Amino acid sequence: MSRINLAKIASILIGLAIVAAAALSEGAATGSAQTSRRQSSSKRPGVPKESPKEISKEGKDCLSCHQNSTPGIVQQWKESAHYGEGVDCYSCHRANDNDPATFEHYGKKIAVIVTPNYCNRCHSSEVKEFEGSRHAMAASFIGSLDNVLGEIVEGGAAATNGCQQCHGSTVVYQGDGKFDAATWPNSGIGRLNPDGSKGTCAACHGRHSFSSALARQPENCGKCHMGPDHPQAEIYNESKHGIQFRANISKMALDKRSWVVGRDYTAAPTCATCHMSATATQRVTHDAGKRISWTLRPVISTKLSNWEERRESMQEVCSSCHATGWVENFYRQYDATVNLYNEKFGKPAKSVMDKLYADGKLTKTPFDENIEWTYYELWHHQGRRARMGTAMMGPDYTQWHGFYEVAKSFYNEFLGQAEALEPGITEKILGTEFHKWKRGLDPAEIQRILDFYKQMYKQ
Amino acid sequence: MSRINLAKIASILIGLAIVAAAALSEGAATGSAQTSRRQSSSKRPGVPKESPKEISKEGKDCLSCHQNSTPGIVQQWKESAHYGEGVDCYSCHRANDNDPATFEHYGKKIAVIVTPNYCNRCHSSEVKEFEGSRHAMAASFIGSLDNVLGEIVEGGAAATNGCQQCHGSTVVYQGDGKFDAATWPNSGIGRLNPDGSKGTCAACHGRHSFSSALARQPENCGKCHMGPDHPQAEIYNESKHGIQFRANISKMALDKRSWVVGRDYTAAPTCATCHMSATATQRVTHDAGKRISWTLRPVISTKLSNWEERRESMQEVCSSCHATGWVENFYRQYDATVNLYNEKFGKPAKSVMDKLYADGKLTKTPFDENIEWTYYELWHHQGRRARMGTAMMGPDYTQWHGFYEVAKSFYNEFLGQAEALEPGITEKILGTEFHKWKRGLDPAEIQRILDFYKQMYKQ
Amino acid sequence: MSRINLAKIASILIGLAIVAAAALSEGAATGSAQTSRRQSSSKRPGVPKESPKEISKEGKDCLSCHQNSTPGIVQQWKESAHYGEGVDCYSCHRANDNDPATFEHYGKKIAVIVTPNYCNRCHSSEVKEFEGSRHAMAASFIGSLDNVLGEIVEGGAAATNGCQQCHGSTVVYQGDGKFDAATWPNSGIGRLNPDGSKGTCAACHGRHSFSSALARQPENCGKCHMGPDHPQAEIYNESKHGIQFRANISKMALDKRSWVVGRDYTAAPTCATCHMSATATQRVTHDAGKRISWTLRPVISTKLSNWEERRESMQEVCSSCHATGWVENFYRQYDATVNLYNEKFGKPAKSVMDKLYADGKLTKTPFDENIEWTYYELWHHQGRRARMGTAMMGPDYTQWHGFYEVAKSFYNEFLGQAEALEPGITEKILGTEFHKWKRGLDPAEIQRILDFYKQMYKQ
Repeated sequence: MSRINLAKIASILIGLAIVAAAALSEGAATGSAQTSRRQSSSKRPGVPKESPKEISKEGKDCLSCHQNSTPGIVQQWKESAHYGEGVDCYSCHRANDNDPATFEHYGKKIAVIVTPNYCNRCHSSEVKEFEGSRHAMAASFIGSLDNVLGEIVEGGAAATNGCQQCHGSTVVYQGDGKFDAATWPNSGIGRLNPDGSKGTCAACHGRHSFSSALARQPENCGKCHMGPDHPQAEIYNESKHGIQFRANISKMALDKRSWVVGRDYTAAPTCATCHMSATATQRVTHDAGKRISWTLRPVISTKLSNWEERRESMQEVCSSCHATGWVENFYRQYDATVNLYNEKFGKPAKSVMDKLYADGKLTKTPFDENIEWTYYELWHHQGRRARMGTAMMGPDYTQWHGFYEVAKSFYNEFLGQAEALEPGITEKILGTEFHKWKRGLDPAEIQRILDFYKQMYKQ
Repeated sequence: MSRINLAKIASILIGLAIVAAAALSEGAATGSAQTSRRQSSSKRPGVPKESPKEISKEGKDCLSCHQNSTPGIVQQWKESAHYGEGVDCYSCHRANDNDPATFEHYGKKIAVIVTPNYCNRCHSSEVKEFEGSRHAMAASFIGSLDNVLGEIVEGGAAATNGCQQCHGSTVVYQGDGKFDAATWPNSGIGRLNPDGSKGTCAACHGRHSFSSALARQPENCGKCHMGPDHPQAEIYNESKHGIQFRANISKMALDKRSWVVGRDYTAAPTCATCHMSATATQRVTHDAGKRISWTLRPVISTKLSNWEERRESMQEVCSSCHATGWVENFYRQYDATVNLYNEKFGKPAKSVMDKLYADGKLTKTPFDENIEWTYYELWHHQGRRARMGTAMMGPDYTQWHGFYEVAKSFYNEFLGQAEALEPGITEKILGTEFHKWKRGLDPAEIQRILDFYKQMYKQ
Repeated sequence: MSRINLAKIASILIGLAIVAAAALSEGAATGSAQTSRRQSSSKRPGVPKESPKEISKEGKDCLSCHQNSTPGIVQQWKESAHYGEGVDCYSCHRANDNDPATFEHYGKKIAVIVTPNYCNRCHSSEVKEFEGSRHAMAASFIGSLDNVLGEIVEGGAAATNGCQQCHGSTVVYQGDGKFDAATWPNSGIGRLNPDGSKGTCAACHGRHSFSSALARQPENCGKCHMGPDHPQAEIYNESKHGIQFRANISKMALDKRSWVVGRDYTAAPTCATCHMSATATQRVTHDAGKRISWTLRPVISTKLSNWEERRESMQEVCSSCHATGWVENFYRQYDATVNLYNEKFGKPAKSVMDKLYADGKLTKTPFDENIEWTYYELWHHQGRRARMGTAMMGPDYTQWHGFYEVAKSFYNEFLGQAEALEPGITEKILGTEFHKWKRGLDPAEIQRILDFYKQMYKQ
């Protein structure tokens, strides 16, 4: 057969398929959400298309303006699972009776902010799980040391655009669909809404596609879990897990409805995999803390209540890809690292600070003396990085951004600043096995210190 | 129908299509640049193929050597829009009469460096827009404080490979196609070329594919807009915008010719979307500063001339996806943050420095006293991060990399260094409502300070 | 032809193709590893499938448990080239006679850790190249200054989870398939294995897919080559090379067997391209240091033995995409930057430290005085960033993370700390042309200093 003939036949076949596919995509709904979602990804948001399921008359009213005034979000919605199911603007924005922050908008009573109370109409189990999580409590840092830092030391606007964009604001409604700008826009995960609900599902399931795939992406968690005080995003990116994710993103099946590690995907775990998503024996949870055994947040880490159960849940995730011996040894390494931080740096530093306050060497006003900043960074920044770096297996975060910085600031800044305030206060600390190297090292001494760590490690 | 029969039929159909497609791709041009670009992405750069449009005899001469000596750039060009249009090596490298930096190369007078004067032969409106932008002025920092830092404090080679690789060098031609190595290779956006033109289109449209898609990628801007003094790339990556971009990159239509937000793509904005690209009512511009209302660069931020018009342009971009109330409130938050930085830290710090210089407490040589470095980082690094973090909605950059660092260095370093040079100089500052918390906080005091910020914020 | 008819025809054609393709993929092996690898990417790891080549009876035994106990790694293996070639669990884990770290596991003698001695059974030339590389020596830092830092100053667990996760641990076997948790899990590139071999191929070719594509990804090298002391990953990401890679990842042919720059791909180089992979005239090497001419690691950079030959190898890589004049000038810039760091900062700082030790102003215990930390960061962190930033063309790393930090810490910390320990020790340094700006700048002085740098640069 000649070249030309082959080309002709192929082009006819391909042409037929394309024309017919186009014809199909303009046709009636097939009834499958999966299919309809694909249809909706046509790139012509200007042309109002119908959802495969009936959308409400009110929804159509909304669209008649918003497809022109805010075409982007209309198109995002058209690519969402909501669209495929006939869940439209009005389905979500229709005012709840118990929500004070609603108003009349072209004849309909609506809410600008769709709170978890609204999502609860359809997604009640997810909302309930979330409500029981620490995420839902994220705005309760208000009144804490961090809050003084944001609101007083730095100033209100810094807190509005910094702290509260992750932790959540206390949203103040001004009537007529308007909000106090100091409190909204805000998509902080613990946001206190006018209707009394906490948080916002959009913190993770970004508006207006509300996709599961997005929530499974590590960047999504990274909006808040990054930076000097909790660089989980950076640690993940350094870890083998993050490396495998980047190299194998096309195999991650991120947009599959079912997303069970070891079955639906095996290339790499994301944040969601380990902390929230389904495994062979666990179902997905919206309480992101459920599998965490240590708290790495405070000055001194402690194990959480029911930590054995929590740890077992996490280890079951690890076991999807790692043998038992590997998992057990990893947890020994992890415990050893947290203990090292606690015993060598966290506890001694805290005891010094406690004594300085008790002895009246420091005022009660936080952050007005330099040592308060040094101490704060020691545990809140550097000490967390050391602990989190190990938890998520990023060696540079464990070492250079973590323990190296902890040691540098403990020995070079903290101890000196404390001595200047109260001479002799660090003497006992420097006499312990941990710190006596500072008084000089000879080979025998080095051996004794190494033996001590080995001993400690075995415990 | 049996399995085998189905398999046979399918494989015949698929086979036909593949063979025919191959036949087509070797065939004559279709006349469409779009099609020809796709044809050219065949992975056999060793085999010289013809562009769908005629390429010049001179171009063919170039290729006869360069497809062996530098096969990579030949292949990049073959995947470019230029190739599809018959724009070849010689079309661009053919010497301009008014360019002193040209030479004879195998019988042709060419330029190694293709300056904007060359691109101007075809892309005159883009070149003109660029020439009116601040980007084109980027090398004018020479002679400034930053330049002393680079050229003197650090040393010449540091400036060559650091500062000038973004800002642009003053290219020195040595004849015979050779350049002073201290000035080239350089692709700084404000490069001063031997022919008097400014900048280089390749700064954003990397050689030799010169693609629009590349210029729309956030990483592209990140070559220069990153790091401690202007971490726009890092802030974008943390922001919801960056998160949505990473998760939806396949929906971004980055390689479409038309790229109108809200129409051709809706998943996320990149740097280009907000600052340069087309919207429903605005056409693309090569003046990246056109939609910027505040300058966040200097010690104290000011609004640019015509800032209302500039801001309206930007808000129209926001409106592709955000409702009016959202956009208005965001700008209130942004203004409040810039004002907070200005009033609480920028202006007081500047007044202290001005007085120290006026009173002869500091020499005129920059960077020879520690406080000059502290002050420089306060505004040039930390203060910009605080402002830019808010501008682009990266909460960790606003807070931990921004205001937290500003406050820490203002209170713990700057004030003390100033007092050591001129006792009493900070007293007035510490008496203001902004800073009196340093003298001690009781609950009533805390309330008063919070009220003050609230009041300030309302203005 | 009516719409419906077209749709019907198209759906029949598409349906036929899909059914037939499915039928084909369940069919017999074709004998081609390429094809079989594709077949294996079916998403049903639960169903044991047969490799296109016969797998061993022992391998089947392993799978009978492990496809349930660790489904993730079984599936990863099924997507590997090993699977296509019939290389199964037992092929790799079958105990070597000379390996003390083996045990009986359900009737088979196996090793948990597959060392290079095991990979050597099939990949002997790769193992040999690796053994000759600096990578294989990475654990020999034990006993060095860095080791005191990790093991003593920070403490054992910090070294286990930090330093050794990149450098490699000395693995201690405890019998019965168990290892000392302080030494394993560990995938450090210089790991000292119980069988005397060095390193682990899995450091780069992650378990259990062992893919070449992964090793070509820049993130892979970034597991260790990142962070404050050697931010190669960050520098790459900033560079034009990294930008082009991100924008053109689909054109990178990362999973092709043959991967010759300029032929199989031209869009961008990754770490592997420049340091290891094949070019028109060079074959791939597993000695990553082969093309490196300067060592940028130590206090003062020196050229490596045979540096001319090494440099030629690297320049040949550059030449795939860059003309000779470009490459030559780039190397002039690079040499100038390294020389600037060496002469202006590295050598003077070292001479001060040497004198302080010689004069008994510092104890022999490392890191017990502040200046030792300042000096360490000057060369080990900041000075490397300045040099590496230039080597890989990341201007912000050269400047803001590099020379700026070097200068700041040299002038503001190091010199003062040295003077406090031994007055007058920095006087000679401050009298040199490099540093006399600190004594004051007038316009003539500025010109003289610039001339001096120009002169120096020409050398």
